[in-house]
Amino acid sequence: MAKHNLRIIPLGGSGEIGKNMTVFEYGNEAIVIDCGIMFPANDMYGVDYIIPDFNYLVQRTDLRILALLITHGHEDHIGAVSHFVTAFPNVPIYATRLTAGLISVKLRDSQSKTEVRVFSANDTLNFGPFKVEPFHVCHSIPDCVGFAVDTPHGLIIHTGDYKFDNSPIDGKPTDYQKLASFGARGVRLLMADSTNADRPGWTPSEATIEPALDRAFTQAKGRIMVATFASLVSRVQIVAHLAAKHNRKLFVNGFTMKEYVKLAREKGYLDIPDNLLGDINKLNSYEPHKVVIMVTGSQGEPSAVLSKLATGRQRTMDLQKGDTIILSSHPIPGNEESVYRTINKLIERGADVVYDALDRVHVSGHACQEEMRLMMHLIRPQYMMPVHGELRHLVQHGKLAQESGMPSDRVIVAENGVVIEVDKYTVRTTERIPGGYIFVDGSSVGDIGKAVIRDREILGADGFLIASVNLNKATGAVLAEPQIISRGFVYLRDSDDLMDTIRQTILNSLQATRHNTEKRREMLEESLERTIYSETKRRPMVFAIVNEF
Amino acid sequence: MAKHNLRIIPLGGSGEIGKNMTVFEYGNEAIVIDCGIMFPANDMYGVDYIIPDFNYLVQRTDLRILALLITHGHEDHIGAVSHFVTAFPNVPIYATRLTAGLISVKLRDSQSKTEVRVFSANDTLNFGPFKVEPFHVCHSIPDCVGFAVDTPHGLIIHTGDYKFDNSPIDGKPTDYQKLASFGARGVRLLMADSTNADRPGWTPSEATIEPALDRAFTQAKGRIMVATFASLVSRVQIVAHLAAKHNRKLFVNGFTMKEYVKLAREKGYLDIPDNLLGDINKLNSYEPHKVVIMVTGSQGEPSAVLSKLATGRQRTMDLQKGDTIILSSHPIPGNEESVYRTINKLIERGADVVYDALDRVHVSGHACQEEMRLMMHLIRPQYMMPVHGELRHLVQHGKLAQESGMPSDRVIVAENGVVIEVDKYTVRTTERIPGGYIFVDGSSVGDIGKAVIRDREILGADGFLIASVNLNKATGAVLAEPQIISRGFVYLRDSDDLMDTIRQTILNSLQATRHNTEKRREMLEESLERTIYSETKRRPMVFAIVNEF
Repeated sequence: MAKHNLRIIPLGGSGEIGKNMTVFEYGNEAIVIDCGIMFPANDMYGVDYIIPDFNYLVQRTDLRILALLITHGHEDHIGAVSHFVTAFPNVPIYATRLTAGLISVKLRDSQSKTEVRVFSANDTLNFGPFKVEPFHVCHSIPDCVGFAVDTPHGLIIHTGDYKFDNSPIDGKPTDYQKLASFGARGVRLLMADSTNADRPGWTPSEATIEPALDRAFTQAKGRIMVATFASLVSRVQIVAHLAAKHNRKLFVNGFTMKEYVKLAREKGYLDIPDNLLGDINKLNSYEPHKVVIMVTGSQGEPSAVLSKLATGRQRTMDLQKGDTIILSSHPIPGNEESVYRTINKLIERGADVVYDALDRVHVSGHACQEEMRLMMHLIRPQYMMPVHGELRHLVQHGKLAQESGMPSDRVIVAENGVVIEVDKYTVRTTERIPGGYIFVDGSSVGDIGKAVIRDREILGADGFLIASVNLNKATGAVLAEPQIISRGFVYLRDSDDLMDTIRQTILNSLQATRHNTEKRREMLEESLERTIYSETKRRPMVFAIVNEF
Repeated sequence: MAKHNLRIIPLGGSGEIGKNMTVFEYGNEAIVIDCGIMFPANDMYGVDYIIPDFNYLVQRTDLRILALLITHGHEDHIGAVSHFVTAFPNVPIYATRLTAGLISVKLRDSQSKTEVRVFSANDTLNFGPFKVEPFHVCHSIPDCVGFAVDTPHGLIIHTGDYKFDNSPIDGKPTDYQKLASFGARGVRLLMADSTNADRPGWTPSEATIEPALDRAFTQAKGRIMVATFASLVSRVQIVAHLAAKHNRKLFVNGFTMKEYVKLAREKGYLDIPDNLLGDINKLNSYEPHKVVIMVTGSQGEPSAVLSKLATGRQRTMDLQKGDTIILSSHPIPGNEESVYRTINKLIERGADVVYDALDRVHVSGHACQEEMRLMMHLIRPQYMMPVHGELRHLVQHGKLAQESGMPSDRVIVAENGVVIEVDKYTVRTTERIPGGYIFVDGSSVGDIGKAVIRDREILGADGFLIASVNLNKATGAVLAEPQIISRGFVYLRDSDDLMDTIRQTILNSLQATRHNTEKRREMLEESLERTIYSETKRRPMVFAIVNEF
């Protein structure tokens, strides 16, 4: 007999829901699935990344966290692990082999003594009231799993990121058998990836990329560079096949790409014979038509190889006329501008650029609508909770569930931080726990909030101006020329007239007031703001410093 | 006998090439086609919009500009007209009826005495050595034309923005006859819209939207709101049809949308009977299932109706549960984040949202690859110059031309500012004129350059900190507590420890230096920068003000 309700809490960043971290609680025992970061939106000024707010877990001192379970090695699922181990050093981390390797790299520089325990998709893991049965899924990094969590209130399926690829490069399709067997046993709740819920049909197999890449290889006269996510190991595998086929040596450029290739080869997820690989430092001793180079920067990241090539800042190699660059990727929403700008610059510098609009050199790693329907038919859950996506995706995934016959009151669409309670009778949303998500900027975690971001927005749009004035305390006379410091407002050297007006405003304002220092300061700021707006129709931040002697 | 070379110069904003403005020069006479603005990229901090740099034309005092000819009424083709008339008050503007109306609205508030002369697509216009024959094209605003410019060096075709719509809502397809007749006469150079050069096939007809909108209307139980570009008059026409069909009254909300609907009805481009239109101020007296509201904000613009509805800031109406909102639009690159965020917020507030990923509620106004091929076959030009698009689109359009048999040396891909010279024998790129494009920010034109933008970028990412210190001139002793002003760096009230460290750094630095004021100031700034970076790993702008008394 179950004594408690099962509580499921999606935590995580802005934008996507139920993606970065999920807590399963039963009584005073809990397990956590994933611990990832989110990347900031363009208007989150200066924020490096965002981590889930697990302050709730820290404050629940009565709660024993038995394990952190990881579905796969992408940053949005493992990126905040170093923050987690600081808060919960004694909670062991469970991951499949490649994922564990990636986590270990991440924890290498920390003082962490946290154990990273490796499991395989065939294992069964027991944590107090939770029996966890992982199952293999296809995605855009090898060694991905979803989790079936057997609880006192029945079986809960958490798919993780997945697609149904029937011809995966590593030969391991998503585990239809196991999913069907869960369905046969009876599932209370399916929590499923909604990323592509607004895309009809099936996501094409990773194998469908090879012909398009082969075409690009066949047409290329000079060097070939392929940019993709470093973690997209199957893509590197395809490129390695084609390099061998087209008698080219394979080189790897870019820190992350090198790390991933090394780790994936070591762990046996990437089959590249030693003699196919070339040393990037000896690249120039090969003829152009004899080389393929895997590079980073497919999202237009300014510090990655591709952007540096586009702007002539790459140390190891420069762009050559006749280079073919293949972007085997698709811009993540928000990155479109920088990706297309990078492409334009590469073309301007003489490269031939192939990207996914021109040929199928990329496919998504997430299920489309037909796969979502298939997942629901395999699992046949009592309740359905779309996760992994923006609200619009979750709602659309929920509609698909209803079209497949799920009653609308059994579809659970919840925001991050909302508690889903499962008892004998029902699955429902209850309270919302306090907290949200945490900005990381530089070395500081969580000290940047909305107020600072709002100030950055104003400074980023109009800059600031500070006037510093020294007055004679007795007479109120201005001592020496006021000092003006301004950045991001106008180009001072070209703005003599405006600066004269501003200086005159300062003198006028100070003459007009016979108040105390603070009042003088306030009135000075106000008249400066007024003058500046009327002269320029801009609103920089304005400050005055008034010293009286 | 031609005495001069014909010179064609694309001018214009960043990103797209040959779109916003094109100059045709022959000897000392010139005509200009279009005068539009570009919208800033996300990293052009605080810039309102960008105008073409026509300083070249201003400085060519020997050049007589005979006319500014406008292809159609979109902002990227007419948005900088008010700047043009200030520089060239005596140059008449030529536009079709609706476009002329839109330009007049734009010039209403200016002191301009510039004449706006209306022509029809059947007219022939003579300007010195140029005989201009406009031709009707379909696009996403009515009354669009391209121009055939007959010059001493032959016929040049400038398509403007176009698509080949075989079932346009206003019944006027792109003028195949006239295009074919130009082809029969012989064309030196085709300058053609490249926007969708990476999209295969045909752009669907505007008419294909009606069934999708009809489905959404049929399913909607409550109010319907349709968001689209105010200038997309044909879309408003379709919505008006459907409003009548579904027994709903049509309302218009949003300043620009009201202006366009009014103007388009007055000029006869929009057929909406008076009794179909409702007064937006009386909206609430109608039952929800009896209304359709056209709204602005389909690009997520924060000040438009849709964003205000999403955040509960709309004055005329609030969102109601059961509202259906149709985004009959597609995000312009760079706007994806704000559009999808708006959609998520609308859903969160209870609306049912239909957007183009879910059903075909939008089509592009630009030609796709098959239409580009068709245009080339109709025109059969000697030379081909892709325009209107980013470099990647131009290059792709050039490849299509080559696939259709155009020799590669007859495909001209040029950046803005590059002069294309046409003589008896050839068409080729020659010099690049000085200049680029001009940022408009507030009321100022061109006073913001790369330096200010770069400062804004730093301020937007990390903010600033200013320390003001007063010293005794004789002893160097610090008089009173240093004043610190900082914004966008950390939240000061939560940063006592950091502020203590910063104050201590100031005192230490001043004690360590026995230099003159300027040197003290510099050393203080340097030690503050070091301390702040080592404490926070951030680099705010740091300034020190040192007063000595």
